[in-house]
Amino acid sequence: MSAFDDLMAFQRETGALAQVAGRLGWDQETTMPHGAAEQRSEETAALESVLHARRTDPRVGEWLAAIDAGALDEVGQAQLRHITRSFTRAGRVPGKLAADLARLTSRAHRIWAEARADDNFAAFAPVLRDVVALKREEGAALAAGGDVYDALLDDYEPGATAQQLSDMFGALRPRLVALRQAILERPAPKPLSGTYDDAAQMALAQKLAETFGYDMSRGRLDKAVHPFSSGSGDDVRITTRTNPLDPFNCIYSTIHETGHAAYEQAIAPAYRFTPLGEGVSMGVHESQSRIYENQLGRSRAFTGWLHGQMRAQFGDLGLDPEAFYASVNSVQNNYIRTESDEVQYNLHVLLRFDLERALISGDLAVDDLEAAWNERFAADFGFAVDKASDGVLQDVHWSAGLFGYFPTYSLGNVYAGCLNKALRQAVPDLDAQMAAGDLGAATGWLRENVQRHGGLYTPREVIERACGFAPSEAPLLEYLEAKFGDLYAL
Amino acid sequence: MSAFDDLMAFQRETGALAQVAGRLGWDQETTMPHGAAEQRSEETAALESVLHARRTDPRVGEWLAAIDAGALDEVGQAQLRHITRSFTRAGRVPGKLAADLARLTSRAHRIWAEARADDNFAAFAPVLRDVVALKREEGAALAAGGDVYDALLDDYEPGATAQQLSDMFGALRPRLVALRQAILERPAPKPLSGTYDDAAQMALAQKLAETFGYDMSRGRLDKAVHPFSSGSGDDVRITTRTNPLDPFNCIYSTIHETGHAAYEQAIAPAYRFTPLGEGVSMGVHESQSRIYENQLGRSRAFTGWLHGQMRAQFGDLGLDPEAFYASVNSVQNNYIRTESDEVQYNLHVLLRFDLERALISGDLAVDDLEAAWNERFAADFGFAVDKASDGVLQDVHWSAGLFGYFPTYSLGNVYAGCLNKALRQAVPDLDAQMAAGDLGAATGWLRENVQRHGGLYTPREVIERACGFAPSEAPLLEYLEAKFGDLYAL
Repeated sequence: MSAFDDLMAFQRETGALAQVAGRLGWDQETTMPHGAAEQRSEETAALESVLHARRTDPRVGEWLAAIDAGALDEVGQAQLRHITRSFTRAGRVPGKLAADLARLTSRAHRIWAEARADDNFAAFAPVLRDVVALKREEGAALAAGGDVYDALLDDYEPGATAQQLSDMFGALRPRLVALRQAILERPAPKPLSGTYDDAAQMALAQKLAETFGYDMSRGRLDKAVHPFSSGSGDDVRITTRTNPLDPFNCIYSTIHETGHAAYEQAIAPAYRFTPLGEGVSMGVHESQSRIYENQLGRSRAFTGWLHGQMRAQFGDLGLDPEAFYASVNSVQNNYIRTESDEVQYNLHVLLRFDLERALISGDLAVDDLEAAWNERFAADFGFAVDKASDGVLQDVHWSAGLFGYFPTYSLGNVYAGCLNKALRQAVPDLDAQMAAGDLGAATGWLRENVQRHGGLYTPREVIERACGFAPSEAPLLEYLEAKFGDLYAL
Repeated sequence: MSAFDDLMAFQRETGALAQVAGRLGWDQETTMPHGAAEQRSEETAALESVLHARRTDPRVGEWLAAIDAGALDEVGQAQLRHITRSFTRAGRVPGKLAADLARLTSRAHRIWAEARADDNFAAFAPVLRDVVALKREEGAALAAGGDVYDALLDDYEPGATAQQLSDMFGALRPRLVALRQAILERPAPKPLSGTYDDAAQMALAQKLAETFGYDMSRGRLDKAVHPFSSGSGDDVRITTRTNPLDPFNCIYSTIHETGHAAYEQAIAPAYRFTPLGEGVSMGVHESQSRIYENQLGRSRAFTGWLHGQMRAQFGDLGLDPEAFYASVNSVQNNYIRTESDEVQYNLHVLLRFDLERALISGDLAVDDLEAAWNERFAADFGFAVDKASDGVLQDVHWSAGLFGYFPTYSLGNVYAGCLNKALRQAVPDLDAQMAAGDLGAATGWLRENVQRHGGLYTPREVIERACGFAPSEAPLLEYLEAKFGDLYAL
């Protein structure tokens, strides 16, 4: 066996163990008895400790040093690129810092949950200060002289820079603010009313997942408080939730998670358990969930078909197909990112991106964070935050130390905009197909051009190769302005 | 930290990883998508490989050598005894032999399943020959000069010897053969008829599990093709199955698995993730499942209460409480061990025990196994085996290399007989309590005297301490002869 073969065998075993950790996480959110929480945290910690030891195993460094990269094919070179990057990054963070961060964020998460329940940012601020301090330390170690925030961002979106994102987002923000203002001056669409049976919602969810190409023989659909997808390859599971008053919550959570899951299911089987065997970045992942959910799932054509499905499942909806389409795409004032619509969602994200960069750079002190949040919110959304749980305390991310994560949501939307443009060129009669409930060409195009590649190309590369043009925010803006201009008769 | 503390910290992490492997097994049998089977086998193998490396880690040997056993308390000495035994055993089996066995039994299992479907022992014989050869090799390595079969038995029942078991079983066999003959000359009890709703069976199963002291906040009940229990401590899960024509299958599978699970749930929390933190042997484990299922669950007193529960759940049963009790305890000719009753079950096991000892000693050739099985079966049961799937091919164990496992089933019954005798002395009004559906005193006595100790004492010790007398087959025989003598008016 060559050094490369040894390295890959070791990586595959590590990858298999990482999948096991994923199954454990799924179990925790769906089936674990509630009395098992404390014991489970020790089980998870034991497995994470094994994974950490493997990721920093000195043999990886020896194998990497012994490999002649020039002798490898494209796939081998991509594997080497991922492994080198991960190993280098893991080696830069001192073990003590990693352990301190794990302990601190576990504590910070508990404090955040209490502070949110009490609407009391001051109770969270001290521990968040400590988290920011350690994340700056970690970022500096990872950056090795480069930009600290970029080094953190690289965990979620390899190769991206804050400058790049800032340019994109800077172009998005004023046009999104203008679009939402114009929309909110128009009459609100009539909402869906009535109550919707739980089991019938789950049956519809399963049908929708399969319609969007999810292979149920290699996955399953369960309920969870916060929907997620988990796993790669032949065991990719999705979760959704039901609310008797709001079937759209179940429907669009399901389609969103199906986008994530379809990506993981579609990756070339030869990449299983290797760094190429999972979605290449959070941004590209989100591009799949978002194009499934929004550009496809909330299109007039698809909602026309969905309207028929819902009538068959639930009887008269009190809305004709056009009113149903308007209801699905309703834009309203709201505080909460995760409940937001296509137009306002990115404004929520951009706010967090700007604030977290300022926290990491030191331009913004944690003590001033709530005021900065509220000021920016009022500027972009035109009304005031009423309480911390509707504002600065609404998201879990910062308590968990996830700095650099937020912008990948909007990058995913930007990429989805690009892919939608290219898809519509590749499949000219897409609307006619979707109106008949046929998503085969759309999901097939995404599978062929994006999903199957896994980690073979860099995130930007895979989008650019699929689209045939360099990714930018322009297609997303054009799509949103056209769609909502038409819907709200702007 | 002392060497002992280091060793225990390492063991706890290993124990936590072993629990993760258990969760993975539970998932595989209950929730895993069927298309994930191949990928899962790689995930399981990766985790097993980590566990194997830890169990044979040279540091364990160094810690063991550095520990002053005399300075440890009773618990510490018990930990040391378990760890030393496991480490010594693991070190005696060459890595290549362990790997060959894993590969071979995986293949043998597939061949066995096909041969059973085809009722063709000749198709299974060649690979079974190879399995026996490797198990003899493994047994010889483990025995280090001692008895080969005892060395294999020790995996499932530490400290037991074939001679000991043979003495017990030799006393059981003639009286069980005589008892079954006498019973089968009497009229058969009227069987339960009708069909029983699946969801109502599961609701009853949950109620029964809780009645027998299963803590549902630290466990869950699901369905599986072959019922099992899994896990230790605060996450112990049970499974059952339903058959619309035979609710007793669901009821007694559930109570049986509840016995296993209650044991694991009851072990002292301080032992979690250590060798003391799980049931001490297969025999003691089976003693708990069997006393829950049989001596308690199939008693006249308890079935009287159960009769009322079933009437409430399913309406008129067509049997009065006494006929219901007779139906629950019906003894009939059958081929299959797992479908057998209290009287005949041990005869099935004793047959396998004698044959597998002869296979391992070389006194019986695999080519002669089917004939030997059929001859013994006819001698003990008085009728002929009709086909291999009802005879020598019915059990999975030998294909999986589990030689030494079978006798623990009957040892468990023997121990259950002893515990039942002691329990009845300790709780004189047990029948009155059970007739009211109150199992609290019975399960509390077992928890206090057996279950909470986990691996603190040796298997025989824990039974002897609970009973106050040395375990023997006599109480089981007395119990069976009295119960069935009365039931069948012998």
